[in-house]
Amino acid sequence: MAARLFRNARLVTMADPASIAPVEWAAILAVNGRIAYAGPEAGLPATASDAETIDLEGRLVTPGLIDCHTHLVHGGDRAHEFELRLAGASYEEIARAGGGIVSTVTATRSAGEDGLLASALPRLDHLIAEGVTTVEVKSGYGLDLDSERAQLRAARRLASERKVTVSTSFLGAHALPTEFRDDRAGYLALVRDNMLPAIAAEGLADCVDAFCEAIAFSPDEVDELFSAARRLGFKVRLHADQLSDLGGAALAARHGALSADHLEHTDEAGAAAMAAAGTVAVLLPGAFYFIRETRVPPVDLFRKHGTRIAIATDCNPGTSPLTSPLLVMNMAATLFRLTVAECLAGMTIHAAAALGLAGETGSIEEGKWCDLAVWDVERPAELVYRMGFNPLAARYWRGE
Amino acid sequence: MAARLFRNARLVTMADPASIAPVEWAAILAVNGRIAYAGPEAGLPATASDAETIDLEGRLVTPGLIDCHTHLVHGGDRAHEFELRLAGASYEEIARAGGGIVSTVTATRSAGEDGLLASALPRLDHLIAEGVTTVEVKSGYGLDLDSERAQLRAARRLASERKVTVSTSFLGAHALPTEFRDDRAGYLALVRDNMLPAIAAEGLADCVDAFCEAIAFSPDEVDELFSAARRLGFKVRLHADQLSDLGGAALAARHGALSADHLEHTDEAGAAAMAAAGTVAVLLPGAFYFIRETRVPPVDLFRKHGTRIAIATDCNPGTSPLTSPLLVMNMAATLFRLTVAECLAGMTIHAAAALGLAGETGSIEEGKWCDLAVWDVERPAELVYRMGFNPLAARYWRGE
Ligand SMILES: [Zn+2]
Ligand SMILES: [Zn+2]
Repeated sequence: MAARLFRNARLVTMADPASIAPVEWAAILAVNGRIAYAGPEAGLPATASDAETIDLEGRLVTPGLIDCHTHLVHGGDRAHEFELRLAGASYEEIARAGGGIVSTVTATRSAGEDGLLASALPRLDHLIAEGVTTVEVKSGYGLDLDSERAQLRAARRLASERKVTVSTSFLGAHALPTEFRDDRAGYLALVRDNMLPAIAAEGLADCVDAFCEAIAFSPDEVDELFSAARRLGFKVRLHADQLSDLGGAALAARHGALSADHLEHTDEAGAAAMAAAGTVAVLLPGAFYFIRETRVPPVDLFRKHGTRIAIATDCNPGTSPLTSPLLVMNMAATLFRLTVAECLAGMTIHAAAALGLAGETGSIEEGKWCDLAVWDVERPAELVYRMGFNPLAARYWRGE
Repeated sequence: MAARLFRNARLVTMADPASIAPVEWAAILAVNGRIAYAGPEAGLPATASDAETIDLEGRLVTPGLIDCHTHLVHGGDRAHEFELRLAGASYEEIARAGGGIVSTVTATRSAGEDGLLASALPRLDHLIAEGVTTVEVKSGYGLDLDSERAQLRAARRLASERKVTVSTSFLGAHALPTEFRDDRAGYLALVRDNMLPAIAAEGLADCVDAFCEAIAFSPDEVDELFSAARRLGFKVRLHADQLSDLGGAALAARHGALSADHLEHTDEAGAAAMAAAGTVAVLLPGAFYFIRETRVPPVDLFRKHGTRIAIATDCNPGTSPLTSPLLVMNMAATLFRLTVAECLAGMTIHAAAALGLAGETGSIEEGKWCDLAVWDVERPAELVYRMGFNPLAARYWRGE
């Protein structure tokens, strides 16, 4: 592909995360998929006249959306467990019926790489249909090397099957598999000494993630794992402070994490530490809604300290079977009181930062990939205000 | 159209609202759009062999969904008001910026019938894309005869533009228009003595609705209006007990209302009166969610007294800009703890009852219209459990 010119746009670049007033009569010039110019049509370089031209007919253009926290690749679903719970079943009854994360691990292990890919594609297609151009995908339902590898390979293959950027996270420390029920240290050693180097050698993960919670792994256990990961050159991110305050936000910050995610119980010291470390706060309102959480993350503290806020689907079968980035924005506004600009920044420029990709995508600026979402709306607020409506008119990934 | 045979279905008929276990290896025979047979393939009548055959490839089939409470036809949107509120604007500031229901009335009055039709179609298309075959549409943003008439005519025209059944409700008593700010009695007399007969004469409404609330009309005012409506032969329905308990549920029951809607504050006497009168409880979780209500409707009382429960989008620009029936089901389960069967019945058989159409649609039974939704899911629970995902494979309205 050579040069491509998108004309007649109302342009929300998100270069300034606080500014969502469109640049009217704007154009974007892409050369080999990268943005060569974005701004008023009047300022187009002379070379633009040779480019293939696409008339956006006055539509609103934002950066392609970024879903920076998903468990998109997994086996099975938990619809039956959901049904049982609504019918009044107890946790014991659900466990006896094979429910809980164990059921997803079993289904993931038996799906195989091809099966995992096939079941993830319709979910990915729904994200893409709402303007997503970059998606993060975690492992963490395999919990043995072969199965974790199958998840990550399937995630990598998503990027060959569709025009989308995929960022992967190795989440071996998601839960303790049943075969290690009585040997926490043994499982963590396996993750650290066996899985981590193998996954690094194969280049399967862009980042290492962990779940720090009373029901998962302790801060000390995560600390040791992250140290090992960083020695291998990995960046880290953390599921932190979702159900209780274990100091996960500060722990993530100490390791220079790209993001700490969930954060319903994070305190002011954690918010300040994240800001200082440049760790992005990734809020997941779908999980908050689905598990009927009542404690909201400390948005005012993040604002006070300048902690960047991203938002994501957390698409997963247990606590957030959600594949709509537009609904994430509505939930972030309705449930967490994020402003319209915060919602948009949370799925573009700050989501890119949460993936370490802020130099590549997340805003419409010279040098970045030309990842665009084109919308049939008058103002950005409509993207956040409506529920269950998709006004996407077109989507371009690296100019195509 | 002559005969059409849908084979190889997993059939959830909803003939029994409590039963969602599919009939396996099932077929549906439609003749001239009406169901002539629905059940195991083995029981098909001999005449079926002449029918045009459609292979559903083992997919799950439910009745077409019914959205029994919407304000789908209206001018403008309230995205900017939503944005201002998130940015911390007070109600006074929003009112000064032209927000609130007044802005929708102004936009509706100026849109004209064609404009109202054009703006409603994309919303209707989204409902249809998720399997809706019947939709109720209210007036109530015109608040003068010409504008109410334009809303209802636009609603009627939706049924010519798309393959969908439209049921209309005249909601002149939705709010007091500003020009009658100091003359409640005058406006109510206009609705009763002028609008109502004119709308009856033109056959524009299938039902009469009102908003009974401290911020709208009193029980006595509604009582008088409903008496006049019933003298003209109208069935009635009521926006009741949303923000406070004014006895709206019992009032609706006294008038033999098809439905009472919202009902967050309804008491046990109201629930019992509705059950006795056959008045359906229409719950609207989208509005509950959007305005961050905390008091849930008394679902246990409805269950105890056998009050039928329907659910709907309440699609409207002020408190529920929602066009996803699947999300309504998820919200009803997540926020109101309806079971999967209750959610499905709430958008099929009980929604039909709320519209007085239970003899025509809402279940897959002989004699009813062949309104079907065909889904790419294993079990009905998946329709309720997922958020922001649309597994509709096909939709048939009256067999087509
Ligand atoms: Zn997660
Ligand atoms: Zn309503």
